[in-house]
Amino acid sequence: MDKIKIDNIAAFLYPMPMVLVGTVVEGKANFMAVGWSARVNYQPPIMAVALGPHHTNKGIEANKEFSLNIPDVSLMEKTDYCGLVSGGKTDKSKIFDIFYGQLGRAPLIKACPVCISCVLYDAVKLPSNTLYLGEPREVFTEERFMTDNKLDVKKINPFTLTMPDNNYWSVGENLGRAWNIGKALKK
Amino acid sequence: MDKIKIDNIAAFLYPMPMVLVGTVVEGKANFMAVGWSARVNYQPPIMAVALGPHHTNKGIEANKEFSLNIPDVSLMEKTDYCGLVSGGKTDKSKIFDIFYGQLGRAPLIKACPVCISCVLYDAVKLPSNTLYLGEPREVFTEERFMTDNKLDVKKINPFTLTMPDNNYWSVGENLGRAWNIGKALKK
Repeated sequence: MDKIKIDNIAAFLYPMPMVLVGTVVEGKANFMAVGWSARVNYQPPIMAVALGPHHTNKGIEANKEFSLNIPDVSLMEKTDYCGLVSGGKTDKSKIFDIFYGQLGRAPLIKACPVCISCVLYDAVKLPSNTLYLGEPREVFTEERFMTDNKLDVKKINPFTLTMPDNNYWSVGENLGRAWNIGKALKK
Repeated sequence: MDKIKIDNIAAFLYPMPMVLVGTVVEGKANFMAVGWSARVNYQPPIMAVALGPHHTNKGIEANKEFSLNIPDVSLMEKTDYCGLVSGGKTDKSKIFDIFYGQLGRAPLIKACPVCISCVLYDAVKLPSNTLYLGEPREVFTEERFMTDNKLDVKKINPFTLTMPDNNYWSVGENLGRAWNIGKALKK
């Protein structure tokens, strides 16, 4: 073991799931690509996304709702584009075919295998980012993305992000059952 | 498109990066397996982990510090074990060879490709979980996990989690450059 120290700015998780955060800003549906997100509460479910100062934030703060859409690899180029251009300068409302559930300001992307509409639960202000916490109101998918009534990551076919090298990665092979394989080490 | 609605409790990201959260509780190093975590602030870097009511929480709250360790696939069984047994009942201090950096209560795992010691920045109480926010003090790795002075996910070889099906997955193939491939769509 020859441990070395690297700059704290390079502290990332490996890899990060990519999502498209949907909002309505100034009457237009808008989408932003985000790699800094997580489920953060069990009951009720609460999801978190950490955003820098973006156009998207205006929509979340005005409407108190937003969406999380999980793109598959076929949407990688469009997702990346949504991370490159600001909704303040470019109309992103026509990139995807969208639909709405019960929340009229949480645009959902038809082509995304999983779409989650969220009601804003809280906004935690951090030095550079705001951590938006959202409580899912509705979760949409299609039968073809499920196996045994559960979402199946190989059918969803999402992609992940690494930073600071800035690369996208597919999901690899199944390695075993979580909360199970460690039983072999129980005395 | 035949969208269906599924239970909100099934709102997850696909896939989630696995980390081992290290603490010292009642004088003993302790590790917990967590899939609900993310980077949440750019400058300074801040990491978030969402924990239910666990033994680990006592250590974080008493010491105001903790560690995040990224296990590789060879540590999958041990990591899973750390998620199955509570430090309140089982001594987990001998599972891994550990070391410490500047923070004496943030145990780091020698066998993990990336180890991050964190000072507690804030603890956000949510209905079932507490979202612990930590500011990295030191990030440890080894030269063999880097390419061009950046961490290389294929050399780290971490694994990811899906819920509620509870499976572990490797990282797949490189799909392209983030914040770059979408340029093709710019007018």
